[in-house]
Amino acid sequence: MARTFNDRLRDAQGRSDSALCVGLDPRGDRLPSACGGEARPFFAFCRQVVDATAELVCAFKPQYACFAATGAFDELRTLIAYIHENHPGVPVILDAKRGDIGDVSALYAKEVFEVLDADAATVNPYLGWDAVEPFTRVPGRGAIVLCHTSNPGSPWLQEFPEAAPVYLRVAERVAKEDTGNLALVVGATFPGQLAAVRATAPDVPFLVPGIGAQSGDLEAVFANGLAADGTGLVVSASRSVIFAGEGDRWTDGVTAAATTLRDAMRRARDASFASRRDSGEAPAR
Amino acid sequence: MARTFNDRLRDAQGRSDSALCVGLDPRGDRLPSACGGEARPFFAFCRQVVDATAELVCAFKPQYACFAATGAFDELRTLIAYIHENHPGVPVILDAKRGDIGDVSALYAKEVFEVLDADAATVNPYLGWDAVEPFTRVPGRGAIVLCHTSNPGSPWLQEFPEAAPVYLRVAERVAKEDTGNLALVVGATFPGQLAAVRATAPDVPFLVPGIGAQSGDLEAVFANGLAADGTGLVVSASRSVIFAGEGDRWTDGVTAAATTLRDAMRRARDASFASRRDSGEAPAR
Repeated sequence: MARTFNDRLRDAQGRSDSALCVGLDPRGDRLPSACGGEARPFFAFCRQVVDATAELVCAFKPQYACFAATGAFDELRTLIAYIHENHPGVPVILDAKRGDIGDVSALYAKEVFEVLDADAATVNPYLGWDAVEPFTRVPGRGAIVLCHTSNPGSPWLQEFPEAAPVYLRVAERVAKEDTGNLALVVGATFPGQLAAVRATAPDVPFLVPGIGAQSGDLEAVFANGLAADGTGLVVSASRSVIFAGEGDRWTDGVTAAATTLRDAMRRARDASFASRRDSGEAPAR
Repeated sequence: MARTFNDRLRDAQGRSDSALCVGLDPRGDRLPSACGGEARPFFAFCRQVVDATAELVCAFKPQYACFAATGAFDELRTLIAYIHENHPGVPVILDAKRGDIGDVSALYAKEVFEVLDADAATVNPYLGWDAVEPFTRVPGRGAIVLCHTSNPGSPWLQEFPEAAPVYLRVAERVAKEDTGNLALVVGATFPGQLAAVRATAPDVPFLVPGIGAQSGDLEAVFANGLAADGTGLVVSASRSVIFAGEGDRWTDGVTAAATTLRDAMRRARDASFASRRDSGEAPAR
């Protein structure tokens, strides 16, 4: 049987022994000077970040907004093709936060999966399940549904109402509909809510932004978010990795930052897994 | 003082005496044969729809997804520039359903207002107010926040929980934050909910999709959605107008469909206004 998106994500995690997803968020004012002079500066920059970190990650996550803000769609398309060609087996998650009425969502799914050839996209559930569903139809591809986001303003809608919050309603639905093609976005900055989502959706993978520049706590993420089998977390870092280098050998700094994060994630995962095993909460691997 | 987006929308409604917003949703498989052969078929088609309806509308609403699904961003940008140049005073609402964490939403606002030069965009409130706020900062431009959408799946999240539903929480916030730069998306297919949003946000303009192809009822829209002063409704129709023509003179069919809708909206507005005046609910204009 064909591998689902979640199978492919798990394969990539197994091969790399890494939970790290590097977010590709190029900004014109933060590019190394060597890239700034290129005809396609965002592609030139991201391509080097990709090559400097591909062995250390389970996924790449290009940020649509960064490319859209300068109309650099060709660079985004070229970047995704570059990853597939040079680092096959590393899934590409397009962070685009799509969602519209059904037939319009289907057009967005076409953009994501056909025009840009991403393996998955982040999807906004505000419009309802008919907005999400078109992203779940393509074999091997996935929809990563916003659940509890990492930004300070997220509780206003997502934790409302207190007794049965929206974000858990979303988690419950995704857990029910998942056939290997669904995951959830759960921010690192709200560890208690991360635990609640894991309790609601025990087997669904989480994409976890908010460590690094947004300063979420890695230990808390693994303690609260790990699935019973020790997998289920894809933790993304963008600025803290991609802008970590300086000077001519800036990619060395990028590799070093990604290595440090990957290793910290391994330790956090192993510590959390060991502590669950000792307390009888999880089976030994 | 500079005119706000809502002032400009009201100006356009006053000039045209029309509540109709034509949605520009080009689809490759539905273009008139003459446009299909053009180098820029979506632009060629939409430009003619725009010229055929500009006197009949208070706004145009290009659908981002239609252009994104084929990577036709240059055509979208060219179309918006064409509207500004040839029909100044008709606001362009980009239907893009944006929303991300604050600094990423700011990049999307840059795409919408700088790269594409739209006057307003539809914005998704799931991430919270920090996702909406970057769209409210540019003088004269606006954010049209999803409140109760027209699709069948919308109640699942938006009407939850029954006693104090999410869509009214959004309406309340927008009413509170509005300084002439905010409006709400409220679908025609849920007239009772439209009335509830109007009661919650008495002065905020509504963008109302869901008539025509989605078969919402125009009389119910005006009876339930009109503001006390007889304005406040921008009712969008896409497929039922733009694909109404056939043959060589296809734009005649487009003009006719838009005229019919504009007139039906005038009648619905006047009937609703008269009935409120007679019942003492609204002041005479």
